[in-house]
Parts: sequence; structure tokens; C-alpha cells
Amino acid sequence: MTTPLIGLYGLGTMGAALALNMAEHGIHVHVANRTTAEVPVFLDRAGPLGTNITAHDDIDALIAALPKPRTILFMIPSTKPMDDMIDFVIPKLSPGDTVIDAGNADFNDTRRRDALLREHELHFVGMGVSGGEEGARHGPSIMVGGTEHSWAQLEPVTKAIAAQHEGDPCVAHLGPDGAGHFVKTVHNGIEYADMQLIAEIHGLLHHGAGRSHAEIGDLFTEWDRGPLKSYLVEITGRLLHEVDPQTGRPVVDIIKDSAGQKGTGRWTVIEAIRMGQSATMIEAAVASRAWSSEGDLRAQAAALYGEDRGTLEIDDAELAKAFSAARVLDYAQGFRILRAASAEFGWDLDYARIAEIWRAGCIIRSALLDDISAAFRNADTGGELILAPAMAEILKDGIPALRALISKSLAAGHATPALASALGWFDTMRQSRGQAHIIQGQRDIFGRHGFERIDATGPHHGPWWG
Amino acid sequence: MTTPLIGLYGLGTMGAALALNMAEHGIHVHVANRTTAEVPVFLDRAGPLGTNITAHDDIDALIAALPKPRTILFMIPSTKPMDDMIDFVIPKLSPGDTVIDAGNADFNDTRRRDALLREHELHFVGMGVSGGEEGARHGPSIMVGGTEHSWAQLEPVTKAIAAQHEGDPCVAHLGPDGAGHFVKTVHNGIEYADMQLIAEIHGLLHHGAGRSHAEIGDLFTEWDRGPLKSYLVEITGRLLHEVDPQTGRPVVDIIKDSAGQKGTGRWTVIEAIRMGQSATMIEAAVASRAWSSEGDLRAQAAALYGEDRGTLEIDDAELAKAFSAARVLDYAQGFRILRAASAEFGWDLDYARIAEIWRAGCIIRSALLDDISAAFRNADTGGELILAPAMAEILKDGIPALRALISKSLAAGHATPALASALGWFDTMRQSRGQAHIIQGQRDIFGRHGFERIDATGPHHGPWWG
Repeated sequence: MTTPLIGLYGLGTMGAALALNMAEHGIHVHVANRTTAEVPVFLDRAGPLGTNITAHDDIDALIAALPKPRTILFMIPSTKPMDDMIDFVIPKLSPGDTVIDAGNADFNDTRRRDALLREHELHFVGMGVSGGEEGARHGPSIMVGGTEHSWAQLEPVTKAIAAQHEGDPCVAHLGPDGAGHFVKTVHNGIEYADMQLIAEIHGLLHHGAGRSHAEIGDLFTEWDRGPLKSYLVEITGRLLHEVDPQTGRPVVDIIKDSAGQKGTGRWTVIEAIRMGQSATMIEAAVASRAWSSEGDLRAQAAALYGEDRGTLEIDDAELAKAFSAARVLDYAQGFRILRAASAEFGWDLDYARIAEIWRAGCIIRSALLDDISAAFRNADTGGELILAPAMAEILKDGIPALRALISKSLAAGHATPALASALGWFDTMRQSRGQAHIIQGQRDIFGRHGFERIDATGPHHGPWWG
Repeated sequence: MTTPLIGLYGLGTMGAALALNMAEHGIHVHVANRTTAEVPVFLDRAGPLGTNITAHDDIDALIAALPKPRTILFMIPSTKPMDDMIDFVIPKLSPGDTVIDAGNADFNDTRRRDALLREHELHFVGMGVSGGEEGARHGPSIMVGGTEHSWAQLEPVTKAIAAQHEGDPCVAHLGPDGAGHFVKTVHNGIEYADMQLIAEIHGLLHHGAGRSHAEIGDLFTEWDRGPLKSYLVEITGRLLHEVDPQTGRPVVDIIKDSAGQKGTGRWTVIEAIRMGQSATMIEAAVASRAWSSEGDLRAQAAALYGEDRGTLEIDDAELAKAFSAARVLDYAQGFRILRAASAEFGWDLDYARIAEIWRAGCIIRSALLDDISAAFRNADTGGELILAPAMAEILKDGIPALRALISKSLAAGHATPALASALGWFDTMRQSRGQAHIIQGQRDIFGRHGFERIDATGPHHGPWWG
């Protein structure tokens, strides 16, 4: 068996980390970068790993050095630079070569690029990589979309560098074209909502129950030893104990409450809505980040309306149950989006496998994902996590706590948009007859839209139309 | 002064109604339809109004009959048929002619078509028409986007046929290209949320307070005589009193609870999110319609989790206050979307005027719009309705009632996604310091994204990065 071999272009933070990860796992990686100055710095950092690295001055030299069929991973911005690069390399590549975009691309772009490369008998892979720099260097979760041909080239490389969950590499070939980038996008959407849930819970404990950041940090650290165990819970525990060296204050007190966002959260929500799969928890998180950037308006509104948040009695065990339930609902909304996209684009996504490859390496890795993958393996729920017996157990246990928590939090003036969205969705879905008949009646009166009857098929109009 | 003259192509429900409205107001309208069979039926319906109508066999004859510069209104599907029609008529029109799309177009399509027609020295108008068939026939609210040249042609026609609010025609030239269709889209988004609020309130009164549909209808009818007066409140009152002739049951009890939606609600939310203006109430309404179509899933979830909704004590006066506050927040979110689009596309939208032209003819016409237009005229709030004194009065009065209502409704298991989204947004916006510092801390730990400090400008990292 020959040593797996790959090209990698783009030695920024993530690209360099991936290249070192490959070299460390015995993969020979040919590298190049847009500007050559970074290359010696990178090689210096590589140290003894450099024996598995061959650096080139530019993309032409990189292409020339690789045997066919070539596999070249690009870690450059997935926007115009990627399009420009594709236009540049198409005439230099040979039929059967694979171009990989390992950035956070909009899967619509990935689908477009895949179609373009197909015209030239080339292969395009949209590869979602989660885990930040640390993950890229020591084991990310990798979501691959592309052809079987490309996967055959990529499989040994990605299995070597991916995070290992009890010996299972956290990588999978999820489907063709945009499947990998789409799953990565939804991963990020789920991450947005999980972070927002944590932020809201912190607010209730701090402003409602009057606990210090460190006390709340202790609770998160404790949670990280039980069923709520997850990377985000772990780092929240750590964050809340950190002290700002300049001021001696808890570091969270000196961070401005204005959250940034790149594209993936918004993309998740937009695609969800487009497909009729409103992911209201993820939208609450995206919205909350947007509103956080409106500090001036919030200050004016606070002056106008007051910003009191009343005291809350919070029981830790009940709070943990409420958080667990909300988190299940977050994942459930995320997997519904995946199911809709899988149907629309013919991807045949394997939900259990997706949950499995998220169990290590990525930002949303959590003990819950073990249960979720098992739930998908053990019960045919058509992708509906809320119908899976293992999830129903968590929900039945946690919903009363979530209900009580939100009810008193809203009454006391706390903002809990993601927690409330979770409950709003759950309560909507557990009502066999909802309230849409009122809307259908209105629509028929004002727009003659017609409605279905409960006792007959086909469209009907109300008596107001005679 | 010559008689205003216009061409109208597409004699479906809305097109026919608009043509008759024009003819009745002394506008000479030249009409044609894709299939000619409808034309004699239409002329028969027109009766004596036919003296102001000239029918043609096809679009070529219609174009030939109109003096230049021509103004032709198309009421055909704003999707591919509109594109096909544009391609067909471009070579037949002359510089200075105007093509109007009076359908519910995606404003992105309108902008694209506007650019295309400009290349041919033609004008394109995206014209939002609200009010359904009744409005189109007897006075709709009309939102015009296009050039000054086109508006000069259109102004006398639209002012004649528009709904009149105390003598003020409900039509305005809101800006160029997509401005009219965008404002119409957001109008529909606001409408979605208003309808969802009403549906949720009905659910609380029926399932929580145990009131009959007719009793609830009485309350809506009473509301329609006070500050909550609006077309949607009026028709809800009517709807809830209607009896199904087949079964003798209240008609709402025989309507399937599965609400349809065309595109405008989703478009509103998608554009809002794209521009960082999450309209969570509108999204709750869009989501609720989507979820309403999942009857099978809801039945399974109901069997699994139970679908109990507990009893509620509801005071009518408090409920009215809560509804008023939620409605102000719905409009506030809608106008924020308009402001963002106005900035992005350089439309310079006049918010007060928009509120004014919504006061009659359209589906969301309401007494509140008088207050909203006054609020925009009287205070420079930068498009933020929640900062306007007149709106603050309603909110200060209503938020405690809304808070109490949602708190007890969630506790009792009722689904109130739109009502809860209203409060979630309000409580987020009235906190000068929210919870996003937790998210920023997390992001810096896992992705080295950096954060702003409260005591210094520029990006910083936490002590975890040394």
C-alpha cells in the first residue's frame, strides 16, 4: 500500500493545522500558499513533521508535483477567492482530479461548483470541518460531500486525521455535491441554539437567582460530568471561572455583549424556512446575536421601559432537566432540516451516522449525541427525533421543568427567546388539532383561498361565499 | 385633460376586478387575456362599464392599440409566466413604455426585471396590490416601485382606483425598482403575524377559558368597535359566528387546522434574516403554518406526550391590552425590515406614508395604523416604532398583561409561539446588557474569534490564549 498523498493549498490557521495533522498521521502532503512568506514559518513550525511535507512556490508547482488522479484540498475563503481559484485551476487539472473546498461554504455554492467541475470531468468535494484550529490540528469532525471516486481518494486521509470516538473516526461520506457543507451548516445552526440556551440559562442564574459567575461555572463543570456532558458546557464552566488579568474582574464581565456571526447560522434558518422546516430555536439564536449588536437601541429602550429582571428560585436538578429537554428539541429541529434537504436534493442522508461523527472533534460534541445516534439506529422515526423513545424519555422528564422555568422567567422579565421557542414548538407539535383553522377561515373570507374540511377531501369555501 | 388610459393583461380574479375598478373610475382600459374565451364573460360582467373597456384578442393587439408611452399592467403569475411575457413584449415595445407587474412578486425578481427593461430603455414597475378581490374591485391599497416617469403615467390611474382613507388615496410611489413589491411583502409578513396572534388568542379563550366560538366572536366584534378595530379582527368576529350549513356546527370546527401559505411570509422572514433583522413574530407565524401541515406527526406526538391544555382565567380587558402590545411589536418588527431594506437598496422609504396607505383597502388595515403613521410623523425614531412615545404608551400599558398571559398560558401547556416571540423580542431589546458576552467568550475559546471589551476598543482575546 502506498502512502496516501494529498495537495493542500492555503496555510492560514485552519489549513496549516490540517497539514500538520496529516503529516503527523503519515500522509505526505504537498503544500502551497498564496503568499510564499508564510511557507518557511510553517515549515519551521512543522519541525520533524516536515519529512512528510513538500512545499511548493505556487499552485502550478503543487499541481505539477501530484500524481494523477490528484486530490487537492483548498482552505481559502469559500466565496470569490474559491471561484477565482476554480477558474484558474480548471485548465491545469486532468480528468478525474478532485478539488476540495474545506471552508465554511454555502452549500448552494458547492452545488454550483460541483456542476461546473463535472462539465470538465473534474470532481468537487464540499468538506465540512468542525472543531476550530484545535480540532483541525488534532482531530476534527469531517463531513464529506462528493463523488465515490473522490471519497476513495479521501477516505484514508480523512480517517487518519479525524477525531476518533472510541476508535471510530468522526468522518463520513454523507452524499454527493453539497451534502457535506449542508450538514456542516446545520451543525453550526444547532451550535448557535445550544450556545444561546447556555447564555439564557446563565442569565437566569446570574440575574434571577443572584449567583456569581464562578458559582454558575461550578454548576456547568458539574453538568459536564453527567448526562449534560458536552464541549460547550465544559468551556462555559471554564469561561465563567476565568479572571481578567487587567481588572481582576470575572472575564465575562469585561466582554461586550455583542455577538458576532458569520454565515452558517443564518444560512441554516434561511434554508429551513425555504423548505418549510422552520427551526425556531436556531432562529431565536440568530436573532439574539443580531439584536445583541444593537446596543444603542437597547440602551434607549432600557431607559424608556426599565430593564428590571426579577428574582427567581432555581433548583439545579430541575434546571438540568429543562436544559436537557431544550437541547433535544434543538437537535430535533436540526435533524428535521437535514431530512428536508436530503429529500429535496436526493442525498439519502444517514442521520445516525451524522450523529456519530459529531460525537468527537466538533463544537457540539456531547454525551447526548450517543443517545441520538442510538435513537436513530434503534427506531425508524422518519428523522423525527421527538418520536424516538429514548428522546421521549428525556422530554417527558424535562418538559415540565422547562415549562415551569420559562413561565416564571417570563413573568419576572427575563428574556429567554431560545428556551421559549423550544417550548412553543413542542407544544405546537403535541396538539393533534392546533389553531390553523382560524387562519384558514380568515384566508377564505379575505382571499377566497378555500380550506379543507375535516369531513371531506378537496377544497371548500365557507358559507360567506354563498 | 385627456382620459387616463392603460393596458391590462390577465383577466383572472384580480385582473378582472382591477379592470372593472378602473372602468368605473372613468379610466379607459384596454384588456386582453392569454385565452380569449374569458373575454366575453368578462365584458358581460362589466355591463355598462364596458364603455370604458376595449378588449383585444392578444397582447400584440393590445400593444398596438395603446398610444406611446404605453403603460401596461400585467396580472399574471409573477414567476416564469412574467419572465416569458417580458421576453415576448420587449421587442414589441418602444422606449419610454412601462411594464407593470401587479402580482405578488419576489422583489429580487422585480429588481432583476427592472434592470433588464432598463437595458431596453423600458420601464418596469413592481406594484403591490393588497385587499384581495374585494379590494381590487372597490379600492385596494397600492404600493408602487418604479421610475418617476412611470409614476407620472400611473398616478392618476392608481389614485382613482385606490381605497380612500378619509379622502386620501391609499397609494404611494414608494421608491424605485423593488420598493413596492418589498413593502407589499412585508405587509403580508405583518399580516401573517397578526393572524397568528388572533389564532393563538382564540385558542387561549376556547381551550383555556372554555368559551364558545360565538362568545369569542362577540369579543372580537366588540374589539372591532374600539382601539383594536381592524379588518382581521372584524372578519374573525364574523368567522366565529358562522355556522356550517351541512352539519349545523360552527364553521371553524369543520375547517381542517392546516394553513396554506404562498411565498410572501417566508420571503419576509428570509430577507429579514439576510439583513440581520430577525422578525421573530413573523417567523413564528410562518413556522406555525408550516407545522400546521404536519397533522400526522402532531397526532403521533399528541399520543406520545398527551395534548392537555389547562384552564385559564382570562380577563377581557387585560387580554385586549396584551393583544395591543403584541400587535405594536409585530408592526415594529415589520418596519425594522423596511428600514434595513431601504438602507441597503437606497429606497429612502417614507414609513409614515407607508402606514398611511395601509389604513384602508388592505388586509392589515386597522385603527392602530393611524397611530403608527402619526408616531412616525411626530417623532424621529429612526424607524424604530418601539421608541415612539405613542407606541411606548401602548406597550407600557400592555406588556404587563402580555407577560401575565403568556406566563400562565405556557404553564398550562398552550402553544403561543407568536405571543411569546413578541415578549422575547421586547425583553431582549429593553436590556442594555444582554447575554451575548457569554457567547463571545465561548467563541473566543473554541474559535479564537476575539471579542470587544467594555473598557477598550478593538478586538481582544481572553486569558485562555495567554
